[in-house]
Amino acid sequence: IEVSKLLALKAQLGTEDVSSQKFVLKTPKGTRDYNPQQMTIRNNVLQKIITVFKKHGAECIDTPVFELKEVLTGKYGEDSKLIYDLKDQGGEILALRYDLTVPLARYLAMSKINTLKRYHIAKVYRRDNPAMTRGRYREFYQCDFDIAGQYDLMVPDVECLKVVTEILDALDIGKYVLKVNHRRLLDGMFEACGVPVDKFRSTCSTVDKLDKSPWEEVRTEMINEKGITPDAADRIGEYVRLNGGAELAEKLLKDEKLSKSKAAVEGLEGIKLLLKYSELMGIKENILFDLSLARGLDYYTGVIYEAVLTQPIKVGNEELAVGSIAGGGRYDNLVGMFDSKNKQVPCVGVSIGVERIFSILEAKLASGDINVRTNDIEVYVASAQKNFLEERMKICAELWNAGIKTEQSYKKNPKMLNQLQHCEENGIPLAVVLGESELKRGVVKIRNITTREEQEVPRDNLVEELRTRLDALNVKEINGTA
Amino acid sequence: IEVSKLLALKAQLGTEDVSSQKFVLKTPKGTRDYNPQQMTIRNNVLQKIITVFKKHGAECIDTPVFELKEVLTGKYGEDSKLIYDLKDQGGEILALRYDLTVPLARYLAMSKINTLKRYHIAKVYRRDNPAMTRGRYREFYQCDFDIAGQYDLMVPDVECLKVVTEILDALDIGKYVLKVNHRRLLDGMFEACGVPVDKFRSTCSTVDKLDKSPWEEVRTEMINEKGITPDAADRIGEYVRLNGGAELAEKLLKDEKLSKSKAAVEGLEGIKLLLKYSELMGIKENILFDLSLARGLDYYTGVIYEAVLTQPIKVGNEELAVGSIAGGGRYDNLVGMFDSKNKQVPCVGVSIGVERIFSILEAKLASGDINVRTNDIEVYVASAQKNFLEERMKICAELWNAGIKTEQSYKKNPKMLNQLQHCEENGIPLAVVLGESELKRGVVKIRNITTREEQEVPRDNLVEELRTRLDALNVKEINGTA
Repeated sequence: IEVSKLLALKAQLGTEDVSSQKFVLKTPKGTRDYNPQQMTIRNNVLQKIITVFKKHGAECIDTPVFELKEVLTGKYGEDSKLIYDLKDQGGEILALRYDLTVPLARYLAMSKINTLKRYHIAKVYRRDNPAMTRGRYREFYQCDFDIAGQYDLMVPDVECLKVVTEILDALDIGKYVLKVNHRRLLDGMFEACGVPVDKFRSTCSTVDKLDKSPWEEVRTEMINEKGITPDAADRIGEYVRLNGGAELAEKLLKDEKLSKSKAAVEGLEGIKLLLKYSELMGIKENILFDLSLARGLDYYTGVIYEAVLTQPIKVGNEELAVGSIAGGGRYDNLVGMFDSKNKQVPCVGVSIGVERIFSILEAKLASGDINVRTNDIEVYVASAQKNFLEERMKICAELWNAGIKTEQSYKKNPKMLNQLQHCEENGIPLAVVLGESELKRGVVKIRNITTREEQEVPRDNLVEELRTRLDALNVKEINGTA
Repeated sequence: IEVSKLLALKAQLGTEDVSSQKFVLKTPKGTRDYNPQQMTIRNNVLQKIITVFKKHGAECIDTPVFELKEVLTGKYGEDSKLIYDLKDQGGEILALRYDLTVPLARYLAMSKINTLKRYHIAKVYRRDNPAMTRGRYREFYQCDFDIAGQYDLMVPDVECLKVVTEILDALDIGKYVLKVNHRRLLDGMFEACGVPVDKFRSTCSTVDKLDKSPWEEVRTEMINEKGITPDAADRIGEYVRLNGGAELAEKLLKDEKLSKSKAAVEGLEGIKLLLKYSELMGIKENILFDLSLARGLDYYTGVIYEAVLTQPIKVGNEELAVGSIAGGGRYDNLVGMFDSKNKQVPCVGVSIGVERIFSILEAKLASGDINVRTNDIEVYVASAQKNFLEERMKICAELWNAGIKTEQSYKKNPKMLNQLQHCEENGIPLAVVLGESELKRGVVKIRNITTREEQEVPRDNLVEELRTRLDALNVKEINGTA
């Protein structure tokens, strides 16, 4: 009876231990883990993007994940409320970076750098409403390519567009259009429509919502929330429905109202030049001059652009709408905001929205449309008999030292079936199979996992024999006959 | 007079603009930017480490930079005060990750994964006193390799040691020793020396300081701060000065006091087996069984280890002391802390301290001992004459489309000298030089930047001609004759 009481007590204590883990086990809201399959997809995408960035001569930089809060203050307009602040634990007041553009500008000003072509791939943080199935997170990657320096009009700008097309072509995720517009044209347009200068930025933010909301809603917000007159709003409405190519820019240069605005003319001349350069670079077909494109951020000063997938992506039997997948523009005044002498370093750049690309590919993975291998192991060292752990260890070390990607079971006496199953499940092409009688004769067996063929080879030539077979398998794979 | 007044006023306003930038432009305390040279070094080091991790079949995962604060609570003992908390902005209470081990354990428990061999390379955050010249930062990279799963004694553990030796050999940064010890042996040793059970952990933290402080100081701390009797401290002092190989483990198994402690015997048997396996893997010479090794973190339960460089690194005319460069151990109870049923997933792993490696290599770079190229550009498209921007753009687009890493000036009419200088400064091997007379004849010049030789080639065969030359240059480089 005493024993059963003790057991009951112990069970109770056990339950209490359990309840000591009170919180729900989860990642913070809007964030997630990446498992090996998701990481493989992510790394493949990032590798393709980096390849394009490097093809254009971009150098790599990195900045801390947090900045002095003051660095971020006054850069993001209405979106500033989305910044993650760190707790004041004594010392500096810090906040997590919101994008990679402001840190770049801070870096350029602080390091007194006047020219730089750089890429930066890192996570940024926004306390936004996450929509994780559509690739909208609170922690997400940005892949930024920027050109800083005092150069000739639209020359670096068009290269950013070229970079976007090369990346989207390399990722092969469907048809897209690169919308372009110009902040000076927007300013001139607002001016021409009778919007007061101090309302340009907020009106611009409202126009930015046209990609998600119909004109009627945007118009109502302009009038009711931004204090724009109905007349002015209607005039804006006429312009923002326009889109086209060089001929539209030509036409607008002759527009009665716009042609009187210095800003509008400057913007239109810029767009004309950009379209001409785009044609020289062979990307004219991908580009659409679109007056409804506004971009939310405050710091843009010249050309702005956004890449949008034009077809829903087919995943299994479903269709995913994706929308905007890259964006950027020119920001000539941002670096100067950090310089004590207000020295400007003009910049233009683009940011690739990889999370949306990840979520397309992950959906394809989940639906079985694509497959990924999460490790690169070439050789598995196995044994059918007991007490071969030490021999396996010796062989593994030998293969690792020879640079061959090798694995074995961490069990002393694993079952043969389990070992071969592991090879099949993980796409490992070759196994070395150890046996007592073979080792006595100074040989081991090499097994091709796919064909199940086994060949005896001299133990002393194992590395060479494996290399020969791996090379042959690689050649087959490259020729697509594997 | 009015105009000059206005100008003066404007100048004044300008000055006020400037003074609005009140804060000092810097990165947060203990953090830094990486410029392109530093990034090149960093990426090269990480690439070598990833190559070894993958050679051992590790898969890659990633977790968010912050966790629910509760996930980190109670895992780091005295070091918990170094955790960066986020501000409570409504919603969850979050903190930046302190290492990659606790997030791994949270991930395994949350995803109900029982076996995983994974690597994770990411930044972690500690509000420590930075010593940045020695590679100690508040934001720093960890490169972790861990094996989770219920396996046989010391089999995954020895692979972690093998991984460390392969990485340190690949990085080629000097001689090192891998110190090993066992938490069960430490417990048994404290027990045998008369330390009360509830003081094991704090005594262990004090022993951990032996790598930086002499025994006398550590002894004083034990007695004055941890409440250990002078007798017990002296007995500990006898043990912690011991180090050696398998023969030391054998000797201690016969030690009068230790042989009576179950924990000590378990630890010593573990060390014996680990040393035996190390011999089979050919890494025995790199390993030292050292009773003074304690490791600070609370969660270790079995073998612990630390790699230490044994020679100062020569950088220019100076010598840099480096010390610990990798560390890890077995932690069998951490995953269970997150599981509602307390289900355990035994783990062992290692973390490579890459910041110290970066700082060695950066010092070598600064002293001129090593050189790095920060971009991979193969071809620069140049022109000696005015008005060739459009032709340059066409050629650049053609080369980019052919996958050739290409650059040009972003100026309309750059000077020939500046263009060639850019090639020389950036190690670009080839330039395409455009000229009016050549283009009329349907040819362009290819210039070898090093030899300054120029050859005319048909404009239409440019891509092929460049590829032939680039291939030849690559072959030369591989053969070391470049």
